[in-house]
Amino acid sequence: MKKNTLMMMLLLATFTLSAQVKEDFKPASTNQPGHQYPMVNSQRMVRAQISAPDAKSVKLDIGGVKYDMVKNAEGVWTGESAPQDEGFHYYQLEIDGASVPDPGSLYYYGASRWGSGIDVPAADEDFYALKNVPHGETAEVYYYSSVTGSVRHCYIYTPAEYKKNPDKKYPVLYLQHGGGESEHGWAQQGRTGIILDNLVAEGKAVPFIVVMDNGSDVYGPNNPRPERPAQGQRPRGGFDFAGPFRNILEKDLIPMVEANYRVVADSQHRAMAGLSMGGMQTHAIALANPKLFSWVGIFSGGVFTVDEVSQTPGFRENNKLVFISFGSRELANRFGGAADPKPITEELGKTGMNTVFYVSPDTAHEWQSWRRALYQFAQRLFK
Amino acid sequence: MKKNTLMMMLLLATFTLSAQVKEDFKPASTNQPGHQYPMVNSQRMVRAQISAPDAKSVKLDIGGVKYDMVKNAEGVWTGESAPQDEGFHYYQLEIDGASVPDPGSLYYYGASRWGSGIDVPAADEDFYALKNVPHGETAEVYYYSSVTGSVRHCYIYTPAEYKKNPDKKYPVLYLQHGGGESEHGWAQQGRTGIILDNLVAEGKAVPFIVVMDNGSDVYGPNNPRPERPAQGQRPRGGFDFAGPFRNILEKDLIPMVEANYRVVADSQHRAMAGLSMGGMQTHAIALANPKLFSWVGIFSGGVFTVDEVSQTPGFRENNKLVFISFGSRELANRFGGAADPKPITEELGKTGMNTVFYVSPDTAHEWQSWRRALYQFAQRLFK
Repeated sequence: MKKNTLMMMLLLATFTLSAQVKEDFKPASTNQPGHQYPMVNSQRMVRAQISAPDAKSVKLDIGGVKYDMVKNAEGVWTGESAPQDEGFHYYQLEIDGASVPDPGSLYYYGASRWGSGIDVPAADEDFYALKNVPHGETAEVYYYSSVTGSVRHCYIYTPAEYKKNPDKKYPVLYLQHGGGESEHGWAQQGRTGIILDNLVAEGKAVPFIVVMDNGSDVYGPNNPRPERPAQGQRPRGGFDFAGPFRNILEKDLIPMVEANYRVVADSQHRAMAGLSMGGMQTHAIALANPKLFSWVGIFSGGVFTVDEVSQTPGFRENNKLVFISFGSRELANRFGGAADPKPITEELGKTGMNTVFYVSPDTAHEWQSWRRALYQFAQRLFK
Repeated sequence: MKKNTLMMMLLLATFTLSAQVKEDFKPASTNQPGHQYPMVNSQRMVRAQISAPDAKSVKLDIGGVKYDMVKNAEGVWTGESAPQDEGFHYYQLEIDGASVPDPGSLYYYGASRWGSGIDVPAADEDFYALKNVPHGETAEVYYYSSVTGSVRHCYIYTPAEYKKNPDKKYPVLYLQHGGGESEHGWAQQGRTGIILDNLVAEGKAVPFIVVMDNGSDVYGPNNPRPERPAQGQRPRGGFDFAGPFRNILEKDLIPMVEANYRVVADSQHRAMAGLSMGGMQTHAIALANPKLFSWVGIFSGGVFTVDEVSQTPGFRENNKLVFISFGSRELANRFGGAADPKPITEELGKTGMNTVFYVSPDTAHEWQSWRRALYQFAQRLFK
């Protein structure tokens, strides 16, 4: 049998299997209180439902694909998606051409909008499940930034034992979201507090503080937002995605945290990590100021190369961990033949640095990859 | 001229005036980042806009009225409401019969759903405006409840100075939402932290802690949710809206707060207030356990009568303040000739109790009444 014929048969078999929808749908954990829809089945298909009696067309828009929904006699539309990866996905409904949130789901900020999100059950979901363990707190914090000239909003997680040890000082992780996201990402769909509560309860991580700020909205009276370039044009001179946030970190955020929380205020007790754009910011800021963070993590956002490290005096001496992670599907589908990050990270490890390369199984550029990256990274921090 | 004719002319004049829409619309403060719509003009009319090229009908649904929107050549629908009261309002869009959140707005929990909300500018909005003053923190707190047998979620606000005074103990206000709402209400649309930060910064309130829990979802393995009665039926034996929450307060929530925060753990430093259903809970719990709270507030949720107080041994002796408030439109439109709460409260004051009756100008059973009530109540607490 030719290879092509075999491939064809496998594809057909896959298609036939996926066409048989298993009727074991259950309400998603991310639904609004009391709502039955959206649902997910054991094949990880998402089924949405909405009453729209006068609509001509309703679609479920998830994972970059729009799935037609079907209307019943009562004007209620129902439809399901192809199987999704385990974990969290942004989605919306399209009603007669209007893209709107699903009134059945809770809402999350990502893809540059507050809108619907759904958690598809995962084999390893226990690590981010809410349990009866000692819980830390995730506080909404407002602080004045001299860099932006405005009052900014961030989240600060303190571990469960923080209140019980009034004389103990803690290390701090600065944890950044991706493009089109905000400080809400790690606090909500990232499940940061829950993941750390569980890790600390199991003795797998040392207790530390996590600061989640907004790395995209770095504007205010003192740093006006640049004019939006015309459609399809790139901003003149490129977009400085790390400089303004570095200023905020160095001049306002870190000083505020170190003045208000019981923290060990040195680089050995300070980490930075981020996903996607937040990883690129971590990369740029760690190279620009190598004495700021001794522990760095990039989740789906690039690597540190041997050359970069060699050309950055102090980085090697000061660093305790370089953690690099990707979803397996990101590695399988690298755009434009981008260099493989695994050997690059291994090269760095061979120069004597403490490097970890983690691959999230069967996930893409999505939150399940980043929840798992945090889970892995947190266990290695400040040890 | 007959009275009826004069009334008719006045109504017509009002209608003509309101039909002249002032084109000074500005994006609402409650919009998603970067969104222009919805907007509000100086007449407090709300203008919504959404692209729905294939829709037959799009409506703006606010304040119990659905306003037709109009489609332009590009398939974008625009329409505005009649003038709204100052302050916060829930709303949604209706697209070909589907009731959905407006993708332009931020989302709030109320009317038993997460959905769109809009803040209409108010003459007195300064008291709940975010300013460059010392800010307290509003923390998301998880705690285990023995009453429900589950991990519960609440918000706890600590004042700005809380971290600076490691030996100082603070009084606590337990502050409850209304029916169809949740712990998110006071923390978000209620703007509790912002209001208290501003009051403390101006020296108008003493710093205190605020605990905002969920008084509707009081269920879990140890207290199963009662079966939903058939449509139009009332639950057998009536609905006990205060008992389970009182159990949670006494057995789990207050002990958790007093074990984890620096609080003065006696009734003289403990207050309870609530809006609507939360006010009814405050009323019921304060009469059931008069030694729990010395300061009580009911916002749009009833009164304490002289008879109730007389029949509750210990209430009078232990109480420091009975605060009762309503929106002026609630008083103007009392259902079924309900008794006027003002003379009832004045009667109680004449018996020697410290009573305050506050009326929010030109507002109804809505958040602007309750923000103002909190602003007034907070200035009188723990003094």
